[in-house]
Amino acid sequence: MPASRINPVKIVPLGGLGEIGLNLLVLECARHAIIIDAGVMFPEERGLGLGRLLPDVSYLEHSKAQLDAIILTHAHEDHIGALPYLLRKSPAPVYGTDVTLAFVRRALSEEGPVGADLRPLSPGTEVLAGPFSIEPVRVTHSTPDSVALAIRTPAGLIVHSGDFKIDPAPVDGVHFDTERFARLGEEGVALLLSDSTNAELEGHSGSESSLKPVLTSLMRRTRRRFFLSSFSSHLHRIRQLAEVAHETGRYVVPLGRRMAESVRLGMETGQLNLPPGTFIERAEAEFLEPRRLAFLASGSQGEPRSALAKLATDTQPLVRIEEGDVVVLSSRFIPGNERTIHAVINSLYKRGAEVLYEPMAPVHVSGHARREELNELIRLVRPRYFVPIHGEYRHLALHRALAIKSGIAERNCFLLEDGDTLVMNAGEIRRGNSVSAGRLVEDGEELGDPSLIRERRALAQEGTVIAIVAVSTRTGKIVAGPHLLARGVVSGDGTSSHLTRARSELVERLQVLDEYRRSDGAQIRDEMVRALRRYFSNSIGKRPMIVPYVMEV
Amino acid sequence: MPASRINPVKIVPLGGLGEIGLNLLVLECARHAIIIDAGVMFPEERGLGLGRLLPDVSYLEHSKAQLDAIILTHAHEDHIGALPYLLRKSPAPVYGTDVTLAFVRRALSEEGPVGADLRPLSPGTEVLAGPFSIEPVRVTHSTPDSVALAIRTPAGLIVHSGDFKIDPAPVDGVHFDTERFARLGEEGVALLLSDSTNAELEGHSGSESSLKPVLTSLMRRTRRRFFLSSFSSHLHRIRQLAEVAHETGRYVVPLGRRMAESVRLGMETGQLNLPPGTFIERAEAEFLEPRRLAFLASGSQGEPRSALAKLATDTQPLVRIEEGDVVVLSSRFIPGNERTIHAVINSLYKRGAEVLYEPMAPVHVSGHARREELNELIRLVRPRYFVPIHGEYRHLALHRALAIKSGIAERNCFLLEDGDTLVMNAGEIRRGNSVSAGRLVEDGEELGDPSLIRERRALAQEGTVIAIVAVSTRTGKIVAGPHLLARGVVSGDGTSSHLTRARSELVERLQVLDEYRRSDGAQIRDEMVRALRRYFSNSIGKRPMIVPYVMEV
Repeated sequence: MPASRINPVKIVPLGGLGEIGLNLLVLECARHAIIIDAGVMFPEERGLGLGRLLPDVSYLEHSKAQLDAIILTHAHEDHIGALPYLLRKSPAPVYGTDVTLAFVRRALSEEGPVGADLRPLSPGTEVLAGPFSIEPVRVTHSTPDSVALAIRTPAGLIVHSGDFKIDPAPVDGVHFDTERFARLGEEGVALLLSDSTNAELEGHSGSESSLKPVLTSLMRRTRRRFFLSSFSSHLHRIRQLAEVAHETGRYVVPLGRRMAESVRLGMETGQLNLPPGTFIERAEAEFLEPRRLAFLASGSQGEPRSALAKLATDTQPLVRIEEGDVVVLSSRFIPGNERTIHAVINSLYKRGAEVLYEPMAPVHVSGHARREELNELIRLVRPRYFVPIHGEYRHLALHRALAIKSGIAERNCFLLEDGDTLVMNAGEIRRGNSVSAGRLVEDGEELGDPSLIRERRALAQEGTVIAIVAVSTRTGKIVAGPHLLARGVVSGDGTSSHLTRARSELVERLQVLDEYRRSDGAQIRDEMVRALRRYFSNSIGKRPMIVPYVMEV
Repeated sequence: MPASRINPVKIVPLGGLGEIGLNLLVLECARHAIIIDAGVMFPEERGLGLGRLLPDVSYLEHSKAQLDAIILTHAHEDHIGALPYLLRKSPAPVYGTDVTLAFVRRALSEEGPVGADLRPLSPGTEVLAGPFSIEPVRVTHSTPDSVALAIRTPAGLIVHSGDFKIDPAPVDGVHFDTERFARLGEEGVALLLSDSTNAELEGHSGSESSLKPVLTSLMRRTRRRFFLSSFSSHLHRIRQLAEVAHETGRYVVPLGRRMAESVRLGMETGQLNLPPGTFIERAEAEFLEPRRLAFLASGSQGEPRSALAKLATDTQPLVRIEEGDVVVLSSRFIPGNERTIHAVINSLYKRGAEVLYEPMAPVHVSGHARREELNELIRLVRPRYFVPIHGEYRHLALHRALAIKSGIAERNCFLLEDGDTLVMNAGEIRRGNSVSAGRLVEDGEELGDPSLIRERRALAQEGTVIAIVAVSTRTGKIVAGPHLLARGVVSGDGTSSHLTRARSELVERLQVLDEYRRSDGAQIRDEMVRALRRYFSNSIGKRPMIVPYVMEV
């Protein structure tokens, strides 16, 4: 089969396999490449002043392939957030559905001038990019206008699920396209890559629209103001809140720039078709009775400068939480954010609000397929090969086991991590060489340098002691110092008894050096580090970072 | 009523109200005091090298009262962990049940020489301490031998729930003493202080013994080794694991010093009465078939040096996770620990284990009462006044609302935070003055200084730049420098172009100073800080901590 040997397809995940977020997958064939999604996430380690994590795409430079298209499956940050960075490194046309592109435009405008060739994507219409033909297939998810991708390649048909659930009653009436997936299955799918986020959870995730009766009953029984906090990109949730508000005689007030913009994007893309006057400005809200108001607040993850955090700390302009207000946190608490979210909830309670959240009340529905839905997609698509994507290792492992249980041959189910590759050749798939993949982190206005971050981590744990002496260039003798400065270890104003004692120990050590030989800078520095390490370890059980400096005068 | 006015009782919570952990309550009457529980917790902010949080008990010094007794309700760290610290500050006899004192002895021996007068506490036997008479009442909880306290005071009867649940089928057959609580209710309880940990959750927490069939079926279907990770103080859980292991033909191997000691303490106190040979050493385990082994591992919260973390990183001596092993995480994931726990789970999967945890499998039961049980205690005790304890503000607020709903007068339900006090006088309770309360933190071998911790937080975020010049004492002119050193900002070896540029900007500024007047140290320092702040903020968007030093030579 010489023809098939000429055009193998390489499948290269650079993000999202082994860690949630940073989703980015490269497909390569005959020196052409396409990328599916380009996400960001936040580092788990807080307090080091770091920004977002970005996928390391240096592989693209090493690869000889020409990037023909970047295809986005939906509008979430963990799928589109790295696009500005990616476009600066590897410009290419960007394809997305209407809602996705609306959010992409916002992201691009926020990051300063990034040129982008944005092109529409819509279910039923194929996009050609080099040897690839990409067909979006409608799925349901927590942001509207989400798609999976059926990708025809010279080596076989690949289905990429994007993020999905199978919502039996979608809020916008746009259904998961069961039929199309079934027909793809009949056509013969070589490989299914599928979303593993909820692979731990049995059953179905339930319909987003199941929240409407919950919101209706909560809003009806609330005698004062009603607040709902969710991700600002969750247009289904915003729509339901607005519909219920309209039906129960409340006006909707978006709080915060991002939420207001999402509402605008929702209107622009036809996702928020509500009667005029449903959404009002907060200035207008001041003149209305509390029971006529429903607020939309970003910040359901406890983000410090969000609308919800401002309500909790009473720093939100014109709006203040009062006794009897009801606040609904309509989201999953992302692991790592719980304590911050709990602090916000505690503050809201202190201001007199009733706060509702899971599992106290059924006020959130996940946008990701649970095990029965994952099974259903596998049954529809009937792929020969299977790769779980979008998940930590445990999610991928469980999803792979599920696929095997549902009938795919065990040897055809691959558990890949970022940088592991597959090679597909005439419908046969085998593992390829691993490539470099990883995460970069924003640090101030630059990309973080791991050695500097390590230094800051050490400074955070133990603080620093700076030791300075002046040495005569003429005699080689110490003419001033040692002087000690400390930050984060003992009080640094020089009156600390620890600094006094550490200094006298150091003076003694340096005198020994001084007496026996003309000491050089390196010797003095080494001696200062040794002596101070010993002193602080013995006296207070700390290992501060010692910064020695020998000044020649 | 002059007599009653002479002996009011002051209720002073110094920990556990507004934040989970650090539980410590002071009761005072006629210049006598008792303390109930003395717990520790861990700070939410990681990476600052901090140890445990301790309750600030400086109030005890200001109060004129004599401390007659410290009463411990059960053996958990958040109730006994601060005891060594408390005893050093305010020595007093310590009362606890057998199991509690066994764990207290271990805690005291770990913290070096702390003298302690330990005295037994057992349900049905009153303890006298000054004007107080304390009667322990049996409750069920996740550590055996837990008690609530009925405290008779000159001003009325107080019931303190301790940590509790109402377990209908306790593992050790020792039941929650419904009858005794009911009789206390008949006697007339002025005040109930009750555990709010699970006040968000509807229904019952379920019986600890419901885990036994789950463990049995899991252990039966496991063909290789079985690992269970839980808190090492959870003797009920350890007992069930051991019973099931014995019944299914497995030997139990405790991993880690703490777990082995808990097993020893369990045997010593009669909580682990299993046939001889049930528990074996890990050395012996090497010679047995995998399906004959069940391991107990500490570290269900992902603690870095725990047995489970060592299994995950393959650094556990003699024991290595293999394909087909089953690991059960039998605990709640404490908020803030999730990401660490998830990392451990991911590593275990990578080593081929099947890992089970909530909500994937029903492998944990909480030790704290849910709303129906909280209600039941209120109905039994029928207190005139109510104070929710042991919880964050949200838990306390929800528990208070529950108490009001169950019939206690709203004005008699107090929502206190640490340092808020109540005064009880002839069965009437009103709010008292607030007192100083707070948290101290261990930092190395000392107590943390908030200003130093702030410095380390700043160092962690932004790093530090040190600027040094030498000034002649004779001329007042700069004779050497400025020299810049950096840590955590830009590479610190002096070759960084940022340091070179920052230095030349600084040199220019200092020349201006030097030309116009004899500059003094303070002026030079100010100028260095100003110039360097400006440089780094403009060039890389960072605000490093600037440490200026002017050396006189």
